[in-house]
Amino acid sequence: MDKVTVLFTPDNVAVQVEPGTSLLQAAGLAGISLVSSCGGDGTCGRCLVKVEDGHVRVAETGNLSKKAKQSGLVLACQSFVESNVVIGIPSMSRLTEHQVLLDENQLMEEDIGTDEGFFFRPLCRVVELTLSPPTLAENVADWERLQTALRNVIDCSDIRISLPVLRRLPELLRTDDWRVTVIVAQMNDCAEVVDIAAGHVQKELNLYGLAIDIGTTTVAINLIDLKSGLPVGQKGSYNRQASFGDDVISRIIHASEASGGLPELQSAVISTINDLVAELLQLSNIDAHDVRMVTVAGNTTMTHLFLGLSPKYIRLEPYIPLAASTPAVRASELGLNINPAAYVVCFPSVASYVGGDIVAGTLVTNLAQEERIILLIDIGTNGEMVLGNKDWLVTAACSAGPAFEGGGITFGMRAMKGAIDKIKVDPATFDVQVSTVGRCKAQGICGSGLINCLATLRAVGIIDRTGKLQTDLSTPRLRQGDDGWEFVLVYGNDTAHGRDIVITEHDIKNLMRAKAAVYAGIRSMLQAVQLTEDMIDCVLIAGGFGNCLNIRDAITIGLLPDLPTEKYRFIGNSSLKGARLALISQQAWQEAQLLGSKMTYLELSAGNEFMDEFMSALFLPHTDMTRFPSVTNLK
Amino acid sequence: MDKVTVLFTPDNVAVQVEPGTSLLQAAGLAGISLVSSCGGDGTCGRCLVKVEDGHVRVAETGNLSKKAKQSGLVLACQSFVESNVVIGIPSMSRLTEHQVLLDENQLMEEDIGTDEGFFFRPLCRVVELTLSPPTLAENVADWERLQTALRNVIDCSDIRISLPVLRRLPELLRTDDWRVTVIVAQMNDCAEVVDIAAGHVQKELNLYGLAIDIGTTTVAINLIDLKSGLPVGQKGSYNRQASFGDDVISRIIHASEASGGLPELQSAVISTINDLVAELLQLSNIDAHDVRMVTVAGNTTMTHLFLGLSPKYIRLEPYIPLAASTPAVRASELGLNINPAAYVVCFPSVASYVGGDIVAGTLVTNLAQEERIILLIDIGTNGEMVLGNKDWLVTAACSAGPAFEGGGITFGMRAMKGAIDKIKVDPATFDVQVSTVGRCKAQGICGSGLINCLATLRAVGIIDRTGKLQTDLSTPRLRQGDDGWEFVLVYGNDTAHGRDIVITEHDIKNLMRAKAAVYAGIRSMLQAVQLTEDMIDCVLIAGGFGNCLNIRDAITIGLLPDLPTEKYRFIGNSSLKGARLALISQQAWQEAQLLGSKMTYLELSAGNEFMDEFMSALFLPHTDMTRFPSVTNLK
Repeated sequence: MDKVTVLFTPDNVAVQVEPGTSLLQAAGLAGISLVSSCGGDGTCGRCLVKVEDGHVRVAETGNLSKKAKQSGLVLACQSFVESNVVIGIPSMSRLTEHQVLLDENQLMEEDIGTDEGFFFRPLCRVVELTLSPPTLAENVADWERLQTALRNVIDCSDIRISLPVLRRLPELLRTDDWRVTVIVAQMNDCAEVVDIAAGHVQKELNLYGLAIDIGTTTVAINLIDLKSGLPVGQKGSYNRQASFGDDVISRIIHASEASGGLPELQSAVISTINDLVAELLQLSNIDAHDVRMVTVAGNTTMTHLFLGLSPKYIRLEPYIPLAASTPAVRASELGLNINPAAYVVCFPSVASYVGGDIVAGTLVTNLAQEERIILLIDIGTNGEMVLGNKDWLVTAACSAGPAFEGGGITFGMRAMKGAIDKIKVDPATFDVQVSTVGRCKAQGICGSGLINCLATLRAVGIIDRTGKLQTDLSTPRLRQGDDGWEFVLVYGNDTAHGRDIVITEHDIKNLMRAKAAVYAGIRSMLQAVQLTEDMIDCVLIAGGFGNCLNIRDAITIGLLPDLPTEKYRFIGNSSLKGARLALISQQAWQEAQLLGSKMTYLELSAGNEFMDEFMSALFLPHTDMTRFPSVTNLK
Repeated sequence: MDKVTVLFTPDNVAVQVEPGTSLLQAAGLAGISLVSSCGGDGTCGRCLVKVEDGHVRVAETGNLSKKAKQSGLVLACQSFVESNVVIGIPSMSRLTEHQVLLDENQLMEEDIGTDEGFFFRPLCRVVELTLSPPTLAENVADWERLQTALRNVIDCSDIRISLPVLRRLPELLRTDDWRVTVIVAQMNDCAEVVDIAAGHVQKELNLYGLAIDIGTTTVAINLIDLKSGLPVGQKGSYNRQASFGDDVISRIIHASEASGGLPELQSAVISTINDLVAELLQLSNIDAHDVRMVTVAGNTTMTHLFLGLSPKYIRLEPYIPLAASTPAVRASELGLNINPAAYVVCFPSVASYVGGDIVAGTLVTNLAQEERIILLIDIGTNGEMVLGNKDWLVTAACSAGPAFEGGGITFGMRAMKGAIDKIKVDPATFDVQVSTVGRCKAQGICGSGLINCLATLRAVGIIDRTGKLQTDLSTPRLRQGDDGWEFVLVYGNDTAHGRDIVITEHDIKNLMRAKAAVYAGIRSMLQAVQLTEDMIDCVLIAGGFGNCLNIRDAITIGLLPDLPTEKYRFIGNSSLKGARLALISQQAWQEAQLLGSKMTYLELSAGNEFMDEFMSALFLPHTDMTRFPSVTNLK
């Protein structure tokens, strides 16, 4: 089919595209960046443009307000060219530094209501330069000439370059009359010219970055277009290190004690990342060479293993990491299959068990700018938490174990297709109805499903306050299994694999230890700063639970403090979000460096308080029922 | 033979050595650094010690003052142990930071009478650290702990480390109770920990650096002990690039136009250096791995070729180097056979024909701190000069050609054994007597010999003011050769190779063009700043001539201005000296970076003045005899 022309006003820039191309894509080809928080899914409703002439097909799916519709606006991402068209771009739809700031900002406002934000200035970016040609009277050398031109556009006096890039400079400068396009990496006080092309070719040059969250159980990656700041794709999978142990302690033991254990763990996570990146690049048809910057957030042990640093002393008293801030390294040093010279930077850690993932979460939630007292909890294999506001920040970690991620639970699994996320038990017959992710046959139970399960079993009296199955109840679902007493949630003829899905008394003990650890951690932190639970203005829940966790369930089992549910907010994978924010904002990256040092670490194992709290929390919901007034005390 | 014990007081440190070991060596083994400017040759007279007990054999050769002898002092380098001895070390003989400063300083004072100096603080050095062990309450990570300890001893907040070195840190810290010895490279605002050893092992650790002068014709290297700042050895040889052309222009053409020319020239100079370094290391029994820092001074083209940077645009108007300041690179990037991670830094250039060698010379002569007006001339293949004082500095270059280094002259050679450095001609018979370097049979004529030859031939009337041989004179030494008229200096039966050594009319023209270029350069510079020759307080002659050049000869032929000879000083290879100074003084290295930008470059080819001056200078000594009042006007 013949191509059609899209003319953008008021820019008066035209591009030729295939019919059916979205206006968002066409704008990108024309070098015009539109605001698009959702990355083209039609959900953010921000890439508004006006069709001034010609025909476009508008999909019905987009989030377009009535008011915008009445003004004759359409969503660029949901509108597809059918003929030559003239498209007007309102200034509010144009991506400027401030709007990307607002963009990230809006996400935050929804989450916790801050109005703080960061400017869009990626750690690696493309800059077009026009140099003044040298003369006999003004005979500055090529490299110094380039530096002078760069200093006018970037806020940095210390500009470096590697020998291989420097060698190409003179011919590139003279190819298109002293006009060049340079790719600049800038993390702290010093910038580096990492590549140069002749002419003004910003549009033609591709530049991508990766934001990576390395969890003990899962790895998640965002591929970001560093020219626009927009996500191109995201992928996640299990961390292949899992075959060497479920939690950080077993990984540390493997790294420290097995021969070749450290390189083995390092290459497991690197290969996990490489496979995810390869998929992402293939899907979006992006050249690995164009990926030039990586930000990584992970807990302290994960960061150590990713860089091949020994985590040995993290586990031994007095629990000392090898490094809190780690050096920027090149992708080639780690074996990442992207541009070998790409810089890879990791978020700094606060302590052995409070890592860069928590710093990233603290960054992206703007916690350090808040007036109100905020509690941020990231429940993964470890339970890590930050409490504070703009004046003070304390942080602590407790070993929750992998139960909430499905680890150590007979039928535990991640919240994927077939995972039970909710159960209903008939209080008379003890019959069970389950709902699963994807509404298909059950495979196992995910974290939020386990919490709901515990709350429900307790509510109908199948377990008592100590988590013991009430084996005298008259139901065949309660039976002796290989692993002691168990309760059948789904019989084999209704499961995906044909086996009965059960929850064992042993699973329940594991879950109770996990929830007790998290609650005890929160209590110990509050005591350390002499606050009570009701003084917390807002609780942010980060981690794999996402929006699936039922807060009432969590309160019912005593995992979370008994606060009004409206004080709770889910913020998803804040570690990944923080990594993405730092990738596209130098200011955010610098703030992250400072955050680490602003946070006071409480070592929970240093005193007896945590252990006392933990022991008291090994009940449903707690020994001290006055702490959970909203939870009915059952028999 | 049994070892003997040397006990040093007041340190009370004892070492066991073989009888016959010098006290200087013994002191070094005991970790005591003595002042020794000459590196143990017995010439500086500064390593004075007192034999308090026992027997030493004292060589008669040393430069020991009568006063010191009367005080019972001996030179440590000239005194060899024969029994157990007790040796007292006066504080004046002890090497402290300030004394090394004085040391370099004294050299300078002798040269030009400055009292400015630099502190001994090598670009790479060894630091012993004792860290406080971590506790539960003070649980800072290993790397941050090391940084804190380092910041107490080095004046730098930005401390970096590479991943491979960082990986070794935790075990090294814990081997000897948190005591470590680190090797730190520090060039500008940022320091890097390049190696770490367990325990306090400064004495056992070896650390060396190379100062390299890359000349168009010759390469000279100093191997320096960076722990003491003292030279271990030096070597020089022809630059292997010479086979691709004598002067920078022919090298630039080869690099720019021949296929593979640039890498060919780069590897020629790298192999020249590698061979010299291998010899130096073998002679002193030093491990290449212990050489961790290199400073390089060379003209702009040599610096480009050394780094593999194209010098192409240096030669094309408006004469633009690729880079004035070049990045610090690793030895492995260049193929230098030393520690692969060693940093290699080059002195910055001022312009295409005023390079890092001149900046190094300006640095080491402290020209930029002088009240008086100083002229520094470096006569190599190019004639480069700096004029100025603490308030202003101008610099220029003229293409002298390689004549003074023996290039383009039939029997030209370097000032090595067999080189004629002086001739005497009987004004009546025109018989010739020659003196040679090493007093052996003549091989050829060196630069200073050629200048003396020109002056002498003119004095006895064998050449006229235009340099033409007076062929009507009655002597068989004047004859027609293959290359036109020539004058026989030594007949074949008295030469090393059996051939007649002659100087041709063509040689004389080459020499006259070279001397005219230098003189015209000096004149043009003076005119540019509106000074006259007599306003120059001191002329420093750098370059290969060393002390051989006869100033009167140079004035007689019109190479140098007709100033009182006491205004002239020889400073030898100031480029190499500058490289050595920067290697052992961070302060000097930083000063060198500033110097480049302080110097105003005069492009002599930009106006007609230089050409006018050059044409007028193509006579012996000059068209305008009033400029050379001390030179008798011969017929």
